[in-house]
Amino acid sequence: MIRLKKSKISTAVIRRLPRYYRHLKALHQSGVVRISSSALGERTGLTASQIRQDLSCFGEFGQQGYGYNVESLMGEIADIMGMNKKHTAVVVGAGRLGQALLANFPFEAYGVTLTAIYDIDPKIVGTKIGGVTVSPTNEMMTRLARNPVDIGILTVPQSVACETANRLACLGVKGIWNFTNVELGLHLTDLVVENVHFSDSLLSLSYMISEQV
Amino acid sequence: MIRLKKSKISTAVIRRLPRYYRHLKALHQSGVVRISSSALGERTGLTASQIRQDLSCFGEFGQQGYGYNVESLMGEIADIMGMNKKHTAVVVGAGRLGQALLANFPFEAYGVTLTAIYDIDPKIVGTKIGGVTVSPTNEMMTRLARNPVDIGILTVPQSVACETANRLACLGVKGIWNFTNVELGLHLTDLVVENVHFSDSLLSLSYMISEQV
Repeated sequence: MIRLKKSKISTAVIRRLPRYYRHLKALHQSGVVRISSSALGERTGLTASQIRQDLSCFGEFGQQGYGYNVESLMGEIADIMGMNKKHTAVVVGAGRLGQALLANFPFEAYGVTLTAIYDIDPKIVGTKIGGVTVSPTNEMMTRLARNPVDIGILTVPQSVACETANRLACLGVKGIWNFTNVELGLHLTDLVVENVHFSDSLLSLSYMISEQV
Repeated sequence: MIRLKKSKISTAVIRRLPRYYRHLKALHQSGVVRISSSALGERTGLTASQIRQDLSCFGEFGQQGYGYNVESLMGEIADIMGMNKKHTAVVVGAGRLGQALLANFPFEAYGVTLTAIYDIDPKIVGTKIGGVTVSPTNEMMTRLARNPVDIGILTVPQSVACETANRLACLGVKGIWNFTNVELGLHLTDLVVENVHFSDSLLSLSYMISEQV
């Protein structure tokens, strides 16, 4: 495999890689060894040529007329996505949303280690969620200043979303995973904000239902 | 505005429409009246030609050299997305994830009316969440058979995800909004499954952080 330079990869391609990974993992788990780009396309809802074009951004995968080796392509994509590079993260906001995320999402499986959970509610501070004790938010400044983390996971109420995001940005996080449905409006070129927009997903579903009838 | 036939619109286009809507709404709220496709592209992270191409699937929007009227384009997209068509839905699973969703997500603003919330936990059944009383899951069969709904929102534990989705499919829902991170494997051509994949979002964020350094 010849790995090409990863510069100038479009966001659209990057957004499709996790989808490829998910399907390849499911294929691998059900014992599939090799798959053609057209069969992979059918599973993922993309065309074969789209898949070949996407993967060609990163180097030479697969062989003409032979298809892709499922396990090795899965490994390559994990590698490209940096799943093997560990990132550290803190969760800010241990209300229902934070708790749901902490209870259900396998952070370690995606290369993310949680170093702390912060909340202002004295009833929640001190309790353990997923093995991590909830700390008071007022300790966040000094602790993150001393030991910076890569990612701030934002699950605070909407009213304090911008303020908390700004504070995280000042404390040197490289990215914010934003669950608050608030457009953060941070204009820092070296900070990545990834918004989880439930609404986009629901609107797509509504559209597809309406069109079907 | 000449509305064209909406057949054969690709899923990729449909997935971009909610994003356009979100940005147009923010523009409208901040008083912007008109926007060029290139300025809209900059905001949404797409190219001007991509936007023009996407919108041309639905008819003639905007005028050459004049741009788009923000409010009317917003309205048109809402209309295309069926936000004005009401859909009914039930939430199955009122644990942390279900509760977080019910507490934070403005269903009515997206044209979705919740008719019931189901859970098996006797401690949760009978409590009120967002104005709706939680009903026991064993009543779901008879109630949905009598009064079918459009959407089943799946926030049950992973162990019962497939079984619950199957039951919802049999009870005639048109779509499932799946928060369980389980690939449902339903092969019903007339049922739409919309998966919320937190992992795809986190992996994209991790990638973008890694590339930046």
